[in-house]
Amino acid sequence: MKESLETLLITGEDIQSIVRSVGLDNIMDELIEGTYDALINYDNQESIMPVRSGFNYSKPSEGLVEWMPIRSISKDEILIKIVGYHPRNPDQYSLPTIISSVSRYDTRTGHLKALLDGVLPTSLRTGAIAAVASKLFGYAKSESLGLIGCGAQAITQLHAISRVYDISKVYYCDSDPQTEESFVDRCQMLNLNCQFISSDIDTIIRESDIVSTATSIGIGEGPLYDNLVPREWLHINAIGSDFPGKFEVPLSHLKQSYVCPDWITQAKIEGECQQLSDEYIGEDLTDCLKKANELSHLRDNFTVFDSTGLALQDLVVSDILLKYAKSMHLGRYVKLENTSLDEKNPYSFLTQTAKVEK
Amino acid sequence: MKESLETLLITGEDIQSIVRSVGLDNIMDELIEGTYDALINYDNQESIMPVRSGFNYSKPSEGLVEWMPIRSISKDEILIKIVGYHPRNPDQYSLPTIISSVSRYDTRTGHLKALLDGVLPTSLRTGAIAAVASKLFGYAKSESLGLIGCGAQAITQLHAISRVYDISKVYYCDSDPQTEESFVDRCQMLNLNCQFISSDIDTIIRESDIVSTATSIGIGEGPLYDNLVPREWLHINAIGSDFPGKFEVPLSHLKQSYVCPDWITQAKIEGECQQLSDEYIGEDLTDCLKKANELSHLRDNFTVFDSTGLALQDLVVSDILLKYAKSMHLGRYVKLENTSLDEKNPYSFLTQTAKVEK
Repeated sequence: MKESLETLLITGEDIQSIVRSVGLDNIMDELIEGTYDALINYDNQESIMPVRSGFNYSKPSEGLVEWMPIRSISKDEILIKIVGYHPRNPDQYSLPTIISSVSRYDTRTGHLKALLDGVLPTSLRTGAIAAVASKLFGYAKSESLGLIGCGAQAITQLHAISRVYDISKVYYCDSDPQTEESFVDRCQMLNLNCQFISSDIDTIIRESDIVSTATSIGIGEGPLYDNLVPREWLHINAIGSDFPGKFEVPLSHLKQSYVCPDWITQAKIEGECQQLSDEYIGEDLTDCLKKANELSHLRDNFTVFDSTGLALQDLVVSDILLKYAKSMHLGRYVKLENTSLDEKNPYSFLTQTAKVEK
Repeated sequence: MKESLETLLITGEDIQSIVRSVGLDNIMDELIEGTYDALINYDNQESIMPVRSGFNYSKPSEGLVEWMPIRSISKDEILIKIVGYHPRNPDQYSLPTIISSVSRYDTRTGHLKALLDGVLPTSLRTGAIAAVASKLFGYAKSESLGLIGCGAQAITQLHAISRVYDISKVYYCDSDPQTEESFVDRCQMLNLNCQFISSDIDTIIRESDIVSTATSIGIGEGPLYDNLVPREWLHINAIGSDFPGKFEVPLSHLKQSYVCPDWITQAKIEGECQQLSDEYIGEDLTDCLKKANELSHLRDNFTVFDSTGLALQDLVVSDILLKYAKSMHLGRYVKLENTSLDEKNPYSFLTQTAKVEK
């Protein structure tokens, strides 16, 4: 029996339809729960996740394209997200900084089963993991959220974290005045009942229970601030550090904090952990979640979640989206791969008497 | 000005249409010439090609999925081929052993510009590079070609090599009797004026001027033969060795031959060069082509081209196919990536008053 070898394409518009139909809050809640489950059950014998690799360059303008692979043994699948980070995209091309797509392969045959937009899923899952980390490490009565950087990622940070805490105050700033100015408008569809306060970094660090940093600060230009006095329980989600030489949080603050990387190996290459020797680095989020009770005292202390991004998160979000795409009959099947009539003859399509499919 | 962010999909059927329209021989000739040009002009400052990486496994059955990236600075592009090798595909699923797709990204923005079938292109380009190597190293009056392994790759080996030599005799064998039996039929559309001789390996090695090995011999089960006496000018294209532990050509023969890898770094990991210490390994094909005159004496001696596969070849073949796809208006544009209305708001599609495109 010849396998059906079509590739399911799920476009950005399909994902928009899913989000509209399921509801933005419902999708985020499901994703936060799915991310939590995937992390706490993470087993590196079941999910094999090599360190991502890629090209980074300064011409034509600063950017990178990298591939993030994961193999799931139980699913008989490999997922590869290919993601571009080009901080000048918004200014130069009115495009998002992060553009990506997600491919899923069948490990029985090598067939490309599905190709999905990765842009919205990346924002969503980056928000979701920050919510998971904030729930673990954040002050139990957190009600103020600070956002340094008001681009695309700030929206999903706010959205996700507001699903796990009753946020009543949002302090925000961006180095670009227009981006800062448009932020509140861009948050409208979240329907949050909270006060938005345009601030400087000083105020954000002083007044927030939780802060997410998601900036395009340049290589070697970090940190975003220094020598500020935060609340004693400040939890920071360091989202923007995911490039060698790029970091956001001051070393002095990191050294006073429990620093939890999503994945220490990767975080030491491109996260805040680049700045730290091993003695200052805590355990991976997967391990921290497993010992949440033991670590509960950290909720009243400085903590930093060093988020560099895991293909595991992309597996979770694409699982959810594929489930809805199938139940809603969204997406389209394309016969991309040339598996034509005779598997031992790449030219069989040229013959008159083609072998009949079995 | 917002860039148009559509992805051009070129399916297997589109590529079939191109080949039908341009002609199989014309495509192969153009590809052999393009491959030669790309190799002889290869500059690792212009084309940055990391060693491929991937997952390989023995369950659910033996296989691998790997990614082969290359960045072309002059094109402002990154190409990534994702290729699966699953030797049981033909038996288990009536599918080709090698299934792949090729993605091309814009390094200005990270956008996925095109996604192409990789199955037929991989066969074609693997044939083409063997023709380039055979032309460089093969006996000038070569007229007999031996094929050990009669699967999909054997067809394009025969096709490509018959474009650069007047092949009058083809000796062939396959460990699977059915595959051997069907081989001549599968070659019909090549319209070759030559004698096909079903043989054993002994005869093939004894009688051929050029041999291509393209088998699915198991890990650790090589070589395909040993202690046979070839013609003194035998050139072997070792196509099938591209997996750690997999090799086809006997060590004793390699040691008597000038061994030219496509890329020594990779060939030592997964090619015939796994068997060899550095003193027995010649220069890369790119370098050998540059000094063709100096190496012309090798045409009368034992030579082995150790082909593991280069993303550079995929760049060449996809350039040619994209050129024809555009001139023939083939393929279709899909808006895969969610770059929606507001680059700083992943949820903008949920708002009533969406920002108007610039």
